[in-house]
Amino acid sequence: MEFLDEVSEQGVTERRFDLQVEGQRVPGIVWTPSGARGPRPLLLQGHGGVQHKRVDNIVALAHRMVRNHGWAVAAIDAPKHGDRVSKEEAARERERVTRAVRNREPINADRRRAMATASKTAVAEWKATLDALQTLEEIGTECKVAYWGVSMGTRYGVPLVASEPRIQCAALGLYGIGPDPDEFSEQASRIKVPLLFLFQQHDELMTPEAGLALFSAFGSEVKTMHMNPGGHVGIPKFERQECEAFFTRHLGAAPDHSSRV
Amino acid sequence: MEFLDEVSEQGVTERRFDLQVEGQRVPGIVWTPSGARGPRPLLLQGHGGVQHKRVDNIVALAHRMVRNHGWAVAAIDAPKHGDRVSKEEAARERERVTRAVRNREPINADRRRAMATASKTAVAEWKATLDALQTLEEIGTECKVAYWGVSMGTRYGVPLVASEPRIQCAALGLYGIGPDPDEFSEQASRIKVPLLFLFQQHDELMTPEAGLALFSAFGSEVKTMHMNPGGHVGIPKFERQECEAFFTRHLGAAPDHSSRV
Repeated sequence: MEFLDEVSEQGVTERRFDLQVEGQRVPGIVWTPSGARGPRPLLLQGHGGVQHKRVDNIVALAHRMVRNHGWAVAAIDAPKHGDRVSKEEAARERERVTRAVRNREPINADRRRAMATASKTAVAEWKATLDALQTLEEIGTECKVAYWGVSMGTRYGVPLVASEPRIQCAALGLYGIGPDPDEFSEQASRIKVPLLFLFQQHDELMTPEAGLALFSAFGSEVKTMHMNPGGHVGIPKFERQECEAFFTRHLGAAPDHSSRV
Repeated sequence: MEFLDEVSEQGVTERRFDLQVEGQRVPGIVWTPSGARGPRPLLLQGHGGVQHKRVDNIVALAHRMVRNHGWAVAAIDAPKHGDRVSKEEAARERERVTRAVRNREPINADRRRAMATASKTAVAEWKATLDALQTLEEIGTECKVAYWGVSMGTRYGVPLVASEPRIQCAALGLYGIGPDPDEFSEQASRIKVPLLFLFQQHDELMTPEAGLALFSAFGSEVKTMHMNPGGHVGIPKFERQECEAFFTRHLGAAPDHSSRV
């Protein structure tokens, strides 16, 4: 794990890193309390399609978890996203998704198959990232781990959480059962950890019924679906606070931190 | 408003009262921070069918709001409930509801019509109770008001919140659109304040689709549905914390209280 730079601001230290995984460069960021020493819970954040590791919602939740609870937080660019794609490719992809949302085109079977294939790479990269992060003294090999990711972050997050015993709870959302390869429902059923599942009632890309079907498929006994009105990119900001409360309800604050709550 | 007794414990003062409304005795409880002076937000809690003003979930949320945020909280016995019904009648009714839950019998049209009729009395009693509570110096005529009530507390709460401009946000749940008189959907559509809507995925008395239909019918722009696995009486305890967060997000803490959050 090679750090490229380090910036500290208002108690949060942000370090960019590059990791080599199966011949691919995986760029990431890790946020920790400035001056942190010793183990603490770690949140992994998986961004959505056409987004990247440093979008507003990821940074906002990272700052909350670090400042309010002393957690460590990490995000990486998914395959063909962020620093792993040219500006031209990113622009083309953004246009495709914007058009799909505008035209209310459900995620089709081709797209779902493509994400299923890419999810294998994404999962391997997350596991390698987690291995590397746990070598840091301020995170540690015994740290409790949570995952957050909606939309594509859920499509990749479901197989990750299903197959990664270190992850002890997860916030997912903005995805539903559709014409996915069969393995997807099966992966969902293998998840047993507490879940928060965020859904938008007027999502242009999937119906509440499809979301409810995925929620039902999860094998977790403790799971809550939060449904708000609005479209795919309109999760209300107060749900950040809900994610924060969910994560700390299950994994607590860092041992060296006096939680404000 | 006549106080029958007063008990203070760990910072919470609980006073029982009787109120005369249209010739009926309405027994109630008001919880306030011990020694409170001056105005503060007020939470009205409407209990469910076969329950009463002092069931565990009401007392637990009341204590949270008083201790953690300096709020005032009140609950009254609904018509034909609590101290307004004989032990024999209460036992018969409890048996009827227990049987309905066990047999997974949806709330039928007769029962829905009966609740529609009783809701007129319940709403009048809540408005009179609110008038009386606002004469207390530690609540005040300008206080912000929230409502909490699930199941029958929602069946009566919907027409109350729809017609009572003093109520500025509400937590409802465990009810769905069914064979109700037409006025019910119309009442739901007139609600415009922020809502938290709690629903149980395996509710024996109504389907998630019926719950989603009621959630959709609410006229509020800001509304969130929380769906958890489990039956009618199984709302997870952590949703009490969610209600607390919801109420304080919208109405804040008491002016004389330093909120812990």
